[in-house]
Amino acid sequence: MTTTAITNIASLVTNDPSLCADSPLGPIQDAAVVIEGDRVVWTGESSKAPATDNAVDAGGRAMIPGFVDSHSHLVFAGDRTEEFNARMSGRAYSAGGIRTTVAATRAATDEELAANVARYLAEALRQGTTTFETKSGYGLTVEDEARALRIAARHTEEVTYLGAHIVSPDYADDPAGYVDLVTGAMLDACAPYARWIDVFCEKGAFDGDQARAILTAGIAKGLHPRVHANQLGHGPGVQLAVELDAASADHCTHLTDADVDALAQGSTVATLLPGAEFSTRATWPDARRILDAGVTVALSTDCNPGSSFTSSMPFCIALAVRDMGMTPDEALWSATAGGAAALRRTDIGRIAPGARADLVLLDAPSHVHLAYRPGVPLVHAVWQRGERVV
Amino acid sequence: MTTTAITNIASLVTNDPSLCADSPLGPIQDAAVVIEGDRVVWTGESSKAPATDNAVDAGGRAMIPGFVDSHSHLVFAGDRTEEFNARMSGRAYSAGGIRTTVAATRAATDEELAANVARYLAEALRQGTTTFETKSGYGLTVEDEARALRIAARHTEEVTYLGAHIVSPDYADDPAGYVDLVTGAMLDACAPYARWIDVFCEKGAFDGDQARAILTAGIAKGLHPRVHANQLGHGPGVQLAVELDAASADHCTHLTDADVDALAQGSTVATLLPGAEFSTRATWPDARRILDAGVTVALSTDCNPGSSFTSSMPFCIALAVRDMGMTPDEALWSATAGGAAALRRTDIGRIAPGARADLVLLDAPSHVHLAYRPGVPLVHAVWQRGERVV
Ligand SMILES: [Zn+2]
Ligand SMILES: [Zn+2]
Repeated sequence: MTTTAITNIASLVTNDPSLCADSPLGPIQDAAVVIEGDRVVWTGESSKAPATDNAVDAGGRAMIPGFVDSHSHLVFAGDRTEEFNARMSGRAYSAGGIRTTVAATRAATDEELAANVARYLAEALRQGTTTFETKSGYGLTVEDEARALRIAARHTEEVTYLGAHIVSPDYADDPAGYVDLVTGAMLDACAPYARWIDVFCEKGAFDGDQARAILTAGIAKGLHPRVHANQLGHGPGVQLAVELDAASADHCTHLTDADVDALAQGSTVATLLPGAEFSTRATWPDARRILDAGVTVALSTDCNPGSSFTSSMPFCIALAVRDMGMTPDEALWSATAGGAAALRRTDIGRIAPGARADLVLLDAPSHVHLAYRPGVPLVHAVWQRGERVV
Repeated sequence: MTTTAITNIASLVTNDPSLCADSPLGPIQDAAVVIEGDRVVWTGESSKAPATDNAVDAGGRAMIPGFVDSHSHLVFAGDRTEEFNARMSGRAYSAGGIRTTVAATRAATDEELAANVARYLAEALRQGTTTFETKSGYGLTVEDEARALRIAARHTEEVTYLGAHIVSPDYADDPAGYVDLVTGAMLDACAPYARWIDVFCEKGAFDGDQARAILTAGIAKGLHPRVHANQLGHGPGVQLAVELDAASADHCTHLTDADVDALAQGSTVATLLPGAEFSTRATWPDARRILDAGVTVALSTDCNPGSSFTSSMPFCIALAVRDMGMTPDEALWSATAGGAAALRRTDIGRIAPGARADLVLLDAPSHVHLAYRPGVPLVHAVWQRGERVV
């Protein structure tokens, strides 16, 4: 296989903690990266780079690992522009909420759904996201949930079964019946396409007992758990996630001290989704508090047409720094290595020998510019599995 | 001259209030725009478009007027990444503030400064900004201020003399002497290159009397006034701006009722700069309050390496909607027609016969997506003076 050296990198974030006692980012100045096939095979100072078949001049830019967006909802149809516009304009609007998207998604053809997924993934890739998790949850029938996952699985290996997004409108009077479906026929139909099972554990969706039943059924089918937890208020979601060793508890906006303690003692990542708080004008999660408690934090977009229609990891980094008490270094780590931890992956989210060659070159001398220059599209080039894609 | 029709525009924002009693955006659905040379010559429903030499299919996208960024500081060298990083990380940093940029700017060659201006203007253009105001203010000597304006004038017709950015460090013990310079030899050297004169009227910079003297001297030389006012606290800036019929009072973060009344009764635009509040973690200006008082509001980036290093008008729109109480419609108007008003221009900021053909096509069916999809680069194509530039 041919080797390619990317040289003249002003600053490289490796996320290799062994390189630097002071920073988990493992930064290297005046760096080079050598890739072979879909893997990184060497990193170090440019002057010490080995001979390679090809060379690419990074032009003094900064390089970071591709973003790992560990939480999105991309299999949907329709958008909710009018609902958003009314909310932000203080106008009444008889919003159907998630139900609006469920109806549009059910009515869409396979081709429409696949085109939508491809479109949003391409958009995210242009913004530096090289790994995407995505979920079902807008079908809520056996056929529609399985279809969503089948379509998602063609685009990413990180597919999550979220039949338990809300109680299906078809079961409005029989939530227990819907839990039976989600843990029964729907799970059987969906499990072959998914790696993960997720549940929206929140008042108005699924309570702690229902969530436990759903996640436990998924685990029995070989799926790994993750949980939408404590977004809108306090609840049992976070502690349930830790109890079941979920890879991630997502949102974590409202946490008790006991929730923070549980996260600190377990190996469940806290995934923060600032796009949701931004677009719903909600209270920010307190990243500083959970970081100081020793919790592993991931950042993700929650990209969905209702509460957070951003696909931009740089935007989430800027918000995390401005409004959630994260440093620019912590935010970058959480958007890359943190996302990888939330997916229990070690082959992504870092730039080190053996890791996937998922690389982002920024039109900036430092990753700090992602927070310092908010809103500015700074992604200059992207390699995914060793292939230049942007 | 050849005519070109841009057809199949899902929604067109014209900012022509005569088109729609309900909205100053003057929206047209299923629209077309015809341009000839550098001008718009026709707008209306696609089905009624006249015959033209050429046609471009907008693919069902939304079109808006190019953004008018009426406040930026782009003639500078160096950046202040470390200062930003330290501020956001809670670390002490002996920051020189504006002085750091002054030293780097003075040390830069003409070519370096010109390349920087060109780079940031190109970056802004890719984000849909077709008119840029920019200022001096990092030279603070006769030669360096004149040089900054000479370079700026090669890139834009909206050039502002801001010798009164801070008291030059060279005059630390003699601020009155610096005001004499700014209103004397420096003004003489700068006036030929500038349309506007500006002053940073704030505690620690220039007080009301100094600001009045500076602006009045500039007016006597044929420059038009605009004022950095009430950013960091209450002060005389806003009322002085109205008194002198300044085109704009910029920042307006801290306003008394008397300030709001003055703005409502005068013809000075209030230009809000949410990037500055974002990047300094400051209190948001209350756009709702001044809009409800009948004040004309513009949105702008304040792009500068110290307090607001964003060139993104879409980002400012998203912040204005989320945090300043503007509706998506108001924010779009303020970022286009509002900016034009802040520059006392009627040929830009709207899409109507006779206006400049400064057009932005969005990868979205509606301008509302600029707030609904924060951080996502949605600019698909840009025409500037009738020429496709992005
Ligand atoms: Zn979610
Ligand atoms: Zn300014």
